[in-house]
Amino acid sequence: MKFSIIHTDLETKARVGEIVTGHGIIETPIFMPVGTLGSVKGIHQRELSEDIKAQIILGNTYHLYLRPGLEILLQSGGLHKFMHWDRPILSDSGGYQVFSLSDHCKLTPEGALFKSHIDGSSHLFTPEYVVDIQRIIGSDIMMAFDECVPYPSDYDYTKKSIELTHHWLERGIRHFNGSGRIYDHEQSFFPIVQGSVYKDLRVISAEWVASKNCDGNAIGGLAVGEPMEEMYEMIGIVNQVLPWDKPRYLMGVGTPENILESISLGVDMFDCVMPTRNGRNGMLFTSQGIINIRNEKWKDDYSEVDPFGTSFVDKFYSKAYLRHLVINKEMLGAQIASIHNLAFYLDLVHQSREKIKAGVFPLWKKQMIKLLTQRL
Amino acid sequence: MKFSIIHTDLETKARVGEIVTGHGIIETPIFMPVGTLGSVKGIHQRELSEDIKAQIILGNTYHLYLRPGLEILLQSGGLHKFMHWDRPILSDSGGYQVFSLSDHCKLTPEGALFKSHIDGSSHLFTPEYVVDIQRIIGSDIMMAFDECVPYPSDYDYTKKSIELTHHWLERGIRHFNGSGRIYDHEQSFFPIVQGSVYKDLRVISAEWVASKNCDGNAIGGLAVGEPMEEMYEMIGIVNQVLPWDKPRYLMGVGTPENILESISLGVDMFDCVMPTRNGRNGMLFTSQGIINIRNEKWKDDYSEVDPFGTSFVDKFYSKAYLRHLVINKEMLGAQIASIHNLAFYLDLVHQSREKIKAGVFPLWKKQMIKLLTQRL
Repeated sequence: MKFSIIHTDLETKARVGEIVTGHGIIETPIFMPVGTLGSVKGIHQRELSEDIKAQIILGNTYHLYLRPGLEILLQSGGLHKFMHWDRPILSDSGGYQVFSLSDHCKLTPEGALFKSHIDGSSHLFTPEYVVDIQRIIGSDIMMAFDECVPYPSDYDYTKKSIELTHHWLERGIRHFNGSGRIYDHEQSFFPIVQGSVYKDLRVISAEWVASKNCDGNAIGGLAVGEPMEEMYEMIGIVNQVLPWDKPRYLMGVGTPENILESISLGVDMFDCVMPTRNGRNGMLFTSQGIINIRNEKWKDDYSEVDPFGTSFVDKFYSKAYLRHLVINKEMLGAQIASIHNLAFYLDLVHQSREKIKAGVFPLWKKQMIKLLTQRL
Repeated sequence: MKFSIIHTDLETKARVGEIVTGHGIIETPIFMPVGTLGSVKGIHQRELSEDIKAQIILGNTYHLYLRPGLEILLQSGGLHKFMHWDRPILSDSGGYQVFSLSDHCKLTPEGALFKSHIDGSSHLFTPEYVVDIQRIIGSDIMMAFDECVPYPSDYDYTKKSIELTHHWLERGIRHFNGSGRIYDHEQSFFPIVQGSVYKDLRVISAEWVASKNCDGNAIGGLAVGEPMEEMYEMIGIVNQVLPWDKPRYLMGVGTPENILESISLGVDMFDCVMPTRNGRNGMLFTSQGIINIRNEKWKDDYSEVDPFGTSFVDKFYSKAYLRHLVINKEMLGAQIASIHNLAFYLDLVHQSREKIKAGVFPLWKKQMIKLLTQRL
């Protein structure tokens, strides 16, 4: 994996870059649609590449490990072939899901013992095993196994937690270096900075992570309930420590506003279920602001879903039609809203790159945030 | 509306024709995907026209009347504009749904008084009102309001029922002729033959219907539980009475086998929820036979969904991937199966037209039925 910075903003920490992977180039800043179980919910792979213009998608290690399982993934030649997606894939570490979704998760220095939320079966995730799983998934970017502490977590617990995460990171890196790729393409390994909202712990964690000199680095444990200002503060602190010349991935974030603010703090990669999950419930992020399409006011609004939208659904369908579909739980409603929202997110990072290159990012960001946070 | 017969099979009653409507030409025999609430479930209109190659779709009068309702349909300029579909639409009469879906349906000579299955509100469908509703829907082909009797129904009840349906037909035609179209395009009106599985009642009903000299005629009340042989017998009897030079529409039928057999009995138009509803549950109609994709045997079958399939999903996705999606209730599974099945149905009628024109329909039909009814 090769990362080059093409342009940096003079006023903020924003930058435009390019990650070269075995499955092609990713332009940064980038947003990665979430394909939990090997499918971005309600979206054909053709739509992902042609209409949404996704450059990389995310797969969930925890979910893929449980379903379809390692045997099927291995036999099919990895997730790319299984789901027929030939652009890059990032797999998360499973840490977040193990702690939030599974039943009876028990943490030991060895790893995390948990029961599947599907059938209650017992499984042990260790830092080594999580590398093995991601070798089988065959993601272009693998993530280190970490503990993602909830918000709020007290200082002592968080301190002990990052020690565990750092210990796990050592083991993960050793195992990553000692194990080979299974398929033709190269895989990279990203460690994750934790530390909740404690500045000193975030610095310690970022320094530990930075010292490992991996291909890229991630910031985890944010957007889990803490005030937005604290999140931005943590990102700023961590990015002062993380190497400048490696991509920085902010995990699980966020709203369009969060993304623009984080880009200005030097973040390069994002993922979030918000555009698809909220879309399925009728929430649209548009060029004019936020729309709750279930609202009565759209009932007889025959205007386009989003006149400035970039995907085919925006000019094809009307708000009244989309509302009708969403209200009546027609699958097509969820499909339209998901395509719209993802295309909007991908256009947002595309525009960010253009504005950074043109040297007008800070002003543009300010105007956009005002526009995008309006409720229509 | 203009119907021309282009070719007739020498051995069977099968024929190839063309219906010219205000929204373009329909080649017959044709299958019409069902768009209950103004959406063929899980399918974009773009996929419907480009991938499935649907020439006409069906909308349900009962459902559209309840949701989105007449006000929205009228304001948007009819169903075509509301859902953004510029090919022909046929709307059913609502009769079948009023009797099967609604609560407390009460039949009087005036019409059918029923309670909505959505909110329990009371509504009266009369033959005249059903014409008015379909004027607002703006379908290219409207259907007469009829009583669809369940199977089995006794002779006396069925006899009384067709008398009511015939009386309603008179009123419906009078109202149709006395009312004008609301939008730019012309609308046609098809009456429906009923009579359950009683030959003499079917003949009486077909004669009554034929005497009305409408643009086309429909056969209703079949595929409601009667043995398949009785269904074919009724179709044969009715088609001997219905005019040769008008399209014949067999309502709500059926399996690929039913469609091929009915084509050979002189039927020109079909609709059925089977390809989409069964598809959502994992049943695939393929060129090699019927697949239940939920079956364990497809778990590690990495071959294409259907090597002879005509839509993009067939060669793009594997059986193992589709099974994974369907088993885990991922929306994309329902989407893939629905597109596949509908494209298969549209290809089946396309091939039927080609084989009739080539003079090889009977032999081809025999081979196909053997192939298509196999369970893989």
